[in-house]
Amino acid sequence: MIFLGIDCGGTKTRAVAIDENKNVVGEGKGGPGNPNSSPIEVVEESIKTAVFQAVSRSDTEKIRAVCISAAGTLGGNSKLFEKIIEKILPNARIIVKGDYEVAYIACFNFKPGIVFIAGTGSIAYGMNEEGESVRVGGWGHLVGDEGSSYWVGREGIVKALRAYDGRENRTLLTAYVLEYFNAHTPDGIIRAIYSSKNPKTLIGGFAPYVIKAAKEGDKTAYFILKDASREIATAYRAAAERLGFKDVRGKLAITGGLYFGAKDILKPMIEDMLKETFGYRIKLKEPSMSEAQAAAIIALKGC
Amino acid sequence: MIFLGIDCGGTKTRAVAIDENKNVVGEGKGGPGNPNSSPIEVVEESIKTAVFQAVSRSDTEKIRAVCISAAGTLGGNSKLFEKIIEKILPNARIIVKGDYEVAYIACFNFKPGIVFIAGTGSIAYGMNEEGESVRVGGWGHLVGDEGSSYWVGREGIVKALRAYDGRENRTLLTAYVLEYFNAHTPDGIIRAIYSSKNPKTLIGGFAPYVIKAAKEGDKTAYFILKDASREIATAYRAAAERLGFKDVRGKLAITGGLYFGAKDILKPMIEDMLKETFGYRIKLKEPSMSEAQAAAIIALKGC
Repeated sequence: MIFLGIDCGGTKTRAVAIDENKNVVGEGKGGPGNPNSSPIEVVEESIKTAVFQAVSRSDTEKIRAVCISAAGTLGGNSKLFEKIIEKILPNARIIVKGDYEVAYIACFNFKPGIVFIAGTGSIAYGMNEEGESVRVGGWGHLVGDEGSSYWVGREGIVKALRAYDGRENRTLLTAYVLEYFNAHTPDGIIRAIYSSKNPKTLIGGFAPYVIKAAKEGDKTAYFILKDASREIATAYRAAAERLGFKDVRGKLAITGGLYFGAKDILKPMIEDMLKETFGYRIKLKEPSMSEAQAAAIIALKGC
Repeated sequence: MIFLGIDCGGTKTRAVAIDENKNVVGEGKGGPGNPNSSPIEVVEESIKTAVFQAVSRSDTEKIRAVCISAAGTLGGNSKLFEKIIEKILPNARIIVKGDYEVAYIACFNFKPGIVFIAGTGSIAYGMNEEGESVRVGGWGHLVGDEGSSYWVGREGIVKALRAYDGRENRTLLTAYVLEYFNAHTPDGIIRAIYSSKNPKTLIGGFAPYVIKAAKEGDKTAYFILKDASREIATAYRAAAERLGFKDVRGKLAITGGLYFGAKDILKPMIEDMLKETFGYRIKLKEPSMSEAQAAAIIALKGC
């Protein structure tokens, strides 16, 4: 028997096949797999490519269950994924999960814990001994996503413009924001942002410059990352309280592009903030397997 | 001789005609006049209606100059307005101004001062004795507009969701945000926001609920308005410093839908914050004429 996990990301789709003993028996890779940012035909093609790289066509009959992991499954993409998989694997059971639920398995493998995802967006998700789960944040770039790339990038642009206006202290970010937007004046930045078809990605893309400026000693940039760390600690605290965790040591994990892109500066910063928040030192865990592999384990477990 | 001022707003277009002694000789009203939110044909029709109500067709030859006031003229709408006016009044001189420049004239009539516009968006604009002008803020809803309806509404929604998550104290805003979005759960709010064609207006529309909650004693809502007041005071301070004002008494004015919609609570709050910021009491001024009339005076002045 084979169980399949598929991780549908904005730029890559990954598939992992495991046997009933959780041994990886195949892996595959495809193109963009997020229906919120790519046409359905592209997503379908990416999934097909990844699946048939992971499992030979003659082995597809052995596939019992498939778990698909994707961002924004709330918006009704579940049905869409089910249709795609039914065409390729008509006999497999299909489970669609939010990327945060799968990230949690990748970090804790069904054991109690809380994972914070610091990607373009952000969300915290955890589960306790009793199997109760909580979700904190994840309200999207307009009214949430604290501590994400979008949030860090936006704060950087906001502070750069405030410094330009004379509302806040000078910062390296003002020069970096002009460089990033290839503009000569702030009006050029504004034109770029409001004429963009995808301002979310554009604004989030400035986050690496905030990290660069912080490493170069820029106080404004440093405090943006400090605020992001505080947001992350606050989300962990709220989730831990709701899950009834008395002690969170060994129970906090982190993942996501923003985190792994600046781990050297973010990890100690977040751990300091966690000490301030919880009163004792906590070592942040990281995923111990890929999201696709975690999805395969969910397929094996059947829930 | 006649001079015409036209104020192109998102819902209404107003025209005022004055003679060379600044006496109002005609007024007119039309439909939506902002090309950023309405089709060009609609804007053209609104302007025509307003102009021909203010000035009889036989009097159009007496019109020397026209000043059009509109938001977002930076984006290249100047040319568009010039074309519309050239068709109606081929012999008049045409001046296109940003709404903030015209609001400044409506408050100060070319005398030194700073006006803060607290509408859906926000911006501060001022001029000194030497005729030097400064603009502070006005960077739009994604990376600016501090102290605007959008900003207050967004803060309200953010805090409501944070309270729901357990990241912040309980607030009346959580119930109000469900009521405003006609939703049963926060997921319903999120669906409404991200499927909206105009999230800016939708989010800004929550500002009156924040004001309502503040008046009912909700601390979270109260501190959002306090933060908005601080943002407004910060913008005045930055503008005053850049203009070289030693004393700002009599030099600060405010206008905009957010302000006039909640003047009873906002005026004392902002004046308290100004005392904290500048060290002495300042009485906030308000416009002494309509924007359309101020535009007409700009047309008369010829700049």
